[in-house]
Formats: sequence, C-alpha cells, structure tokens
Amino acid sequence: MLSDRLIKAIKEKKSPIVVGLDPRLESIPKEILERHFELYGETFEAAAESILAFNMGIIDAISDLVPAVKPQIAFYEQYGVEGMMAYKKTCEYAKSKGLVVVADVKRGDIGSTSKAYAIAHLGRTKVGSQYLTAFEADFATVNPYLGDDCMKEFMDEVRELEKGLFILVKTSNKTSGQIQDLEVEGEKVYSKVAKIVSTWNDQICGESGYSPIGAVVGATYPSELEALRKLMPKAIFLVPGYGAQGGTASDVVGAFNEDGLGAIVNSSRGIIFAYEGTEAHFAEAARAATIQMRDEINNALEKSGKIYW
Amino acid sequence: MLSDRLIKAIKEKKSPIVVGLDPRLESIPKEILERHFELYGETFEAAAESILAFNMGIIDAISDLVPAVKPQIAFYEQYGVEGMMAYKKTCEYAKSKGLVVVADVKRGDIGSTSKAYAIAHLGRTKVGSQYLTAFEADFATVNPYLGDDCMKEFMDEVRELEKGLFILVKTSNKTSGQIQDLEVEGEKVYSKVAKIVSTWNDQICGESGYSPIGAVVGATYPSELEALRKLMPKAIFLVPGYGAQGGTASDVVGAFNEDGLGAIVNSSRGIIFAYEGTEAHFAEAARAATIQMRDEINNALEKSGKIYW
Repeated sequence: MLSDRLIKAIKEKKSPIVVGLDPRLESIPKEILERHFELYGETFEAAAESILAFNMGIIDAISDLVPAVKPQIAFYEQYGVEGMMAYKKTCEYAKSKGLVVVADVKRGDIGSTSKAYAIAHLGRTKVGSQYLTAFEADFATVNPYLGDDCMKEFMDEVRELEKGLFILVKTSNKTSGQIQDLEVEGEKVYSKVAKIVSTWNDQICGESGYSPIGAVVGATYPSELEALRKLMPKAIFLVPGYGAQGGTASDVVGAFNEDGLGAIVNSSRGIIFAYEGTEAHFAEAARAATIQMRDEINNALEKSGKIYW
Repeated sequence: MLSDRLIKAIKEKKSPIVVGLDPRLESIPKEILERHFELYGETFEAAAESILAFNMGIIDAISDLVPAVKPQIAFYEQYGVEGMMAYKKTCEYAKSKGLVVVADVKRGDIGSTSKAYAIAHLGRTKVGSQYLTAFEADFATVNPYLGDDCMKEFMDEVRELEKGLFILVKTSNKTSGQIQDLEVEGEKVYSKVAKIVSTWNDQICGESGYSPIGAVVGATYPSELEALRKLMPKAIFLVPGYGAQGGTASDVVGAFNEDGLGAIVNSSRGIIFAYEGTEAHFAEAARAATIQMRDEINNALEKSGKIYW
C-alpha cells in the first residue's frame, strides 16, 4: 500500500519532508532560461524546457534526502500544453529516482468528472484496446467541497494501483477560515471534513498503521494541527506553509503522532529557490536548504520525544 | 464587461443555455474514432484528434443557437498532453464562432497558486518579454473552500481582460450537502459562500445589472436555487444538472430573476450524445436536443411570467 511505502521511505531517509516543485520562470537561473530562449525563442517550449532542466537539477540534488516531491500543477498549466509536458516529464523523472510523487492538483468535482480526474492523475486511460498513462503521480490532492461523491471515484486507483489522496482539511492560507472555520454545532467545518477522512481511514489502512487517504493541514495553524492529529490518527498529514509562508519546525511538531510519524512537511520556494540572493549554484543551495529543514524538523521532533528513527 | 456580453448574447439568441463539451471517447461516433485510429493508432493523439473533430461538429451545429459552451477540463486531462491540446483548440474554435467559453476547471488554491491558475485559464503568461496565451477561456469555475485569497487573484484578469468567474455555491451532485449544507448559526455553508459572491457582485457589476462574478447552483436542488437567487440578485447562475443528472425545465425557473435573466442552464451528455441509440447524425441530434431544451426552458419561463425576450 502506498502509505506503507511512504512511511518506509521516511524512516530510511530519516526525513519527513516533501520538496515542492513550483517553478516560477522569473526565479529560474538566468543561464538556464537564456540557453533555451536561444534555442526556441521566447516561447512556451523554451519555458517548459527551462522548467524541466531546473526540476531535474533539483531532483538530482535532493532525491537521496527526501522521500517525496510535490509538483504544483498550476505553475505548469500557465505554460500551456508545453508546460503540461514539463509536468508529465517531471513526474516521470522523479519516479525514476525512486521518489513518491504528490500531484498537487486540488481537483474535485461531481462523480463522473472526478473519475476522469482520477484517471488523468493517478490511473490509466482506455483508448481503443490500449490503457495509456496521462499524468501519472502517486498521490493527488483533492478538494472536499463537493463531498464523498468525489473521493469515492478515486478509490479504484487507490486500491488497484496502490495510489493515495491528500484531502484538503485546513489549508495554510490567510482566508482559509472563511469557509473552513465556520462553526457547525460547536464544531468547525474542517473538523467535519476530518471526520470524513477518518471514516475513509477506517476502510483502508496499511500495515504501517497509516492509510493512503491523507489530509492537508497547514503549518500556519499549529493549534488546529494538534487538534486534527487527534481526530485523524491514521491519516498521513501533508503539511504546507513551512518556510516562505511562515511555518516553523516547532509549529509542525503537532502534525506528528507520538511515534514521530504521520506527517510530511512541504517546502517549495524555501528550498528550490534557496540560491536567490546568494552566490551558490541552485542545486547545491537546494540541497543545503533541504538538509537544514530536515535537521530542524528532526531536532524539533526529538525535543518533543517524537522519535521515529 | 463580460456579464453584459453574455446577457446580450442570451437575449439575441433567445437562449439561456450553455452546452457542456465533456467528451467521452466511448460515446464519440465510431466512424470518427476509427478514422483517427487508422491514422495514429490507439494513441492519445488519435483520442485528441477524435475529440476535436467531434467538438467542432457540435460547435458548428449549435453555435447559432446558444450563447456559450462549457468544456469540462477533466475529460481532456485524462487524454494527457494531447488531450490538453484538444481542450485548447476547442476553446479557440468556440471563440472563433462567437461563443462565450466557460472553462469548467473548478480550480482554487492559496493566493500565489491561484494567480497561476488565473493566468493559465483566463490570462496571459509572461515568457521573457512576450505575453503568451496558455488556455484562454472567458469564464472559469472556482472552488471556494480556500476562501477569498483565491478569488482575489483572479480579479486582475476579470477587470483588465474582461473575464469572469463562476464560484461553486451549491453543486448538483448527491453528496454536495455533506459540506455545503452544514448549518452555521441557522444558515447553510452554501449561503455563506453566496454572501461572499454577493459582496464581490457589489464591487464589480456591468450595465446589464449583472456581475462577471457568478455562481454555480445545481438544477437538482430547486428550492435552494430559489433561495440563493434572492441572496445573489446580481450574480449570473451557471446551472448544471439539467437532463442526464435529473433537473427539469420547471426545476430551473427559480434560477432566473423576475426579468427572466440571470441564469444559464447547462446540459452536456443530454445534448452532445443525444444521437446515441438513434439513427441520427450526432451533430443533427445535438442541434435538435438544443432546440428542445431551449424551448422547454423558454416555455417554463413564459409560464412563470419571467419573460426576457
């Protein structure tokens, strides 16, 4: 089961970290961009090839340090069809390096449409008598606003192809409370979502004690993290908001269970663009930033007695 | 403003209807598929070319009858990069025929990521000194679970490029109530979202009295439709769930204001695959189904005294 594979990789690499691959052309080193502008002009093709070259450099630099990467698909969609090709190849390259790939797609729709998203991002597409792969990742992030109809449609892929989901519970952004914090009979909307996740966790759970149906809970809301940890003991938390968005190592300790497991903390800009404003090579800076983040989080876990290694 | 353009087209064509372009390979006429399998084999290229040929046939058959089309991007994503190219070309072809294009993408994320989605689906992408178009539609559907941070990021495109949004308020699917119907101080979550939409409507509104920030409200919940109409008088409603999902003409009357305007009703399968199980050509069947749906809705509006023509 995918949750077991992820937990094993976290233990082996001693690193509950996921690196966000959110390419922004304006932050990619100039020499990479210029090389491709030279070849292809100022086109989406140049943008896509630059992104791919950059991502491969990052993946090479961090693949022995972390269990997973998380490309955010919006940053690829904005470069058109060519950007989507860079997204596809990034997923493939990361998988070839043994990394778990989290497709940060935040999809969610009515049943039949969610099925198409499940096929697109985790599954196999039937074309005539063939089964082909559109954009294959391991996990996909899912928006719960449409309810269980949506999640259900991903379950064939979760069960048969050993895939997983991270369902948005409490997101890291400032206005996340507008809907998520509304109070329903003394309970927040995000708690209601957490209970839906927990129900799924009871239905599918790996030998590690963790389910392939996880939850997104932002590092920027540490007290909510702790409360939600208790509501979903078998869920792996995907924790965005570390670093650039303001979350610290001590903020995320609450995302972990007493066994020191059950969460992966994401950093995107803080790692992949760590070279900005320095003299360092982007890949070396990303590696150093990953090691620093890993050590910060492991130290904070050790201090709190949550030791998984 | 885009809302004015849409209202004008509804009046001119006497048709508050949007045709959903949700291609399912298994429902596309065999002769179209076989022609492309012959050329390209059982590949995504063949799938994408078949979808495009089918969509162009549908668009040609209905472009004089309706103001808008709504491609659902999930059905294109499942055919990979090639599918995304078919999506892009479908949007372009529909625009060339004077149709308003609603990108049913249901995106929504933290601020900086939503900005990338806004650029991808409504805006212009900067590459070097160039501004390029990734997947340009007129409206995009947006998921509100992350709150205003997300909507705000689309406003540059809405204001400067005359684009629009449809925010998910009450969706047409069975489990939409799990989150959307939760009761907060005697009020449903979807009403809270409606109030957010209404606040945006006060900030941006066209000469027609309608705002380019609309709302998605399902035909399958007629009493909610009526209540929500009162909460968001300036919002155009995008109403899915007609036909295949069970909504009828009398169910959707409540989506319209007393002036007979303020809503566009979507049908996808019921129109584009109307030929299935008949001897008719797919395009002719789609045209006939569109005329029937238009007449049903106009008759229901007339009966209720909501006459816009």
